[in-house]
Amino acid sequence: MSQDASTDGDLRNTGLSLKHDREWDYELDRIVDAVEERNATKVGLQFPEGLKRRGPAVADDLRALTDDDVTYMLSGQPCYGACDLDTYLMRRTDVFVHFGHSPMKESDKIIYVPLFSNVDPFPMMEDALDELPEEDVGLVTTAQHMNRFEEMKEWLESEGYSVHTRKGDDRLTHEGQVLGCNYASADIDADQVLYVGGGKFHPLGLAMEHPDKKVVIADPVNNVVTVADTEKFMKQRYGAVHRAMDAEKWGVIFCTKIGQGRWEMAEEIVNENDDAYLITMDEVTPDRLRNFDMDAFVNTGCPRITTDDGPQFHKPMLTPGEYRIAVGDEPLDSLSFDTFHGTW
Amino acid sequence: MSQDASTDGDLRNTGLSLKHDREWDYELDRIVDAVEERNATKVGLQFPEGLKRRGPAVADDLRALTDDDVTYMLSGQPCYGACDLDTYLMRRTDVFVHFGHSPMKESDKIIYVPLFSNVDPFPMMEDALDELPEEDVGLVTTAQHMNRFEEMKEWLESEGYSVHTRKGDDRLTHEGQVLGCNYASADIDADQVLYVGGGKFHPLGLAMEHPDKKVVIADPVNNVVTVADTEKFMKQRYGAVHRAMDAEKWGVIFCTKIGQGRWEMAEEIVNENDDAYLITMDEVTPDRLRNFDMDAFVNTGCPRITTDDGPQFHKPMLTPGEYRIAVGDEPLDSLSFDTFHGTW
Repeated sequence: MSQDASTDGDLRNTGLSLKHDREWDYELDRIVDAVEERNATKVGLQFPEGLKRRGPAVADDLRALTDDDVTYMLSGQPCYGACDLDTYLMRRTDVFVHFGHSPMKESDKIIYVPLFSNVDPFPMMEDALDELPEEDVGLVTTAQHMNRFEEMKEWLESEGYSVHTRKGDDRLTHEGQVLGCNYASADIDADQVLYVGGGKFHPLGLAMEHPDKKVVIADPVNNVVTVADTEKFMKQRYGAVHRAMDAEKWGVIFCTKIGQGRWEMAEEIVNENDDAYLITMDEVTPDRLRNFDMDAFVNTGCPRITTDDGPQFHKPMLTPGEYRIAVGDEPLDSLSFDTFHGTW
Repeated sequence: MSQDASTDGDLRNTGLSLKHDREWDYELDRIVDAVEERNATKVGLQFPEGLKRRGPAVADDLRALTDDDVTYMLSGQPCYGACDLDTYLMRRTDVFVHFGHSPMKESDKIIYVPLFSNVDPFPMMEDALDELPEEDVGLVTTAQHMNRFEEMKEWLESEGYSVHTRKGDDRLTHEGQVLGCNYASADIDADQVLYVGGGKFHPLGLAMEHPDKKVVIADPVNNVVTVADTEKFMKQRYGAVHRAMDAEKWGVIFCTKIGQGRWEMAEEIVNENDDAYLITMDEVTPDRLRNFDMDAFVNTGCPRITTDDGPQFHKPMLTPGEYRIAVGDEPLDSLSFDTFHGTW
């Protein structure tokens, strides 16, 4: 394996990384088949944020391939993951296509188009070997690189590694797959894990969930190898917990999105704590919480809103586990990453 | 009538205006009766943005008045008007209370608590007389001052005016009431209209919808009398239309909120224009549209998002009528304010 000229150098912050994975397979044939089979007149298309700009061109291609009486509707709802399904649009269309995420749960109503990346992962994997001195190594990746997972595993084995992989739990579709909220596929018997994929979002969650493991990031999108460093994030979490310890009024957020509702957990907190108030919402944003006169929030919904967007909220925002520490139910050293298991 | 000391001077931008209407009647007895009657265990409470901070205290008062097994849930969804009903929370609670807006349509599932203001409107109405030289005058107000509408009318008559009022259409609950999207109650036979209420949101819509009438604002919340001036707004609207004339790709927004869906209007545009793409969403915000690669947007949902928040969007955002001008179907001088009629 050798690097070619187009993959020389760290592309973070250059804007060039986008060009790496410009071509996607939208699986138009599969969509057209479903439209014809169901005599569909309304078709919903949902793209993740980063691909929403491709929506009109995909709709144009589909228009050209189907009857004139088919109306294509693009979802304008925010979409960052498999649990951001636009259920309103799904219920009101004959065919509903969700692009870019693997199914959290299969449903006849939905066509999932995974959008695999065409970027070559091997040059960065080769660079990553220097950071992986032990024989046992875990291997994980995201939905968009899943199509080459077996190849990656075989390549590591050919380099002399004993590669540990597992499917994780019901929330995950594929062997070796991680989600922003679930790293059960890294519950393997190795002290080092190789994450192949773009960005730091997933490997940071992985490293926080598995603080005992070294997490090496082979990023073929930005052309860089790094080691996940959770120190800054952990400091931020401890800071939030400490600031929340003085809270007199707590807002307990119950997220109404499919796959994010932890009702018993939310109800238990408000039943036990007279100063806790249940707040229900779909998108959890700083704007929406600003008008509530609370001293701190507990988010029983997506843990990545809490940990990654935390500093943007006007008051400390904790995970349910962090809340237990702040109110004195658990010791400070029990602080751990909040993950989601199971499906809808 | 004479002004007392506490209402001397223009309170806009002082922060003092809030103190004017500090006391609200939350009609707790009516809510408690409904909870007991329906043996409710889950009660939803929805407040407009400006009153969300009162939510915890209202929940505390209700907790003290009802059984321990009742769980109170505060809606965290944005709420600016009667059409922002949190239908998710409504469907999942035994009693659902919507505060601060009059019903657009009655429903057994919902208790509407109007939250009338306790501010005295008469000092400002007296000041407004200088701006109302003619004998015929229209009178309108918002839901929160509706409880004194008859008094206001009688007072104007005692000052020698011939007062014109009407109920407007089905979207409006009360005689003389205006909504941000409906000013049918000002379709009266007078060239001058007195608007009694806080802020400029409603009177500006009123003046744009009725450009032939002089709209005088008696604002008892900010303690000031002004005359609505639409010039700045009209310039902004013409500017948006002109910028959109070059658009090659149009995003046509269909809003999924109750009371805002104009499906035929949206469908007609995408059927006629090959460069138009339908986008469905609930909250229409600049963030949500930024990721779509469009040159301009047409909003078939709330007209106030288009006119009041327009400059915050990264691309021109037009009402359906303005879209017809931009694409050449209608002349420039047909530009008028977009209003909503009918109910859900």
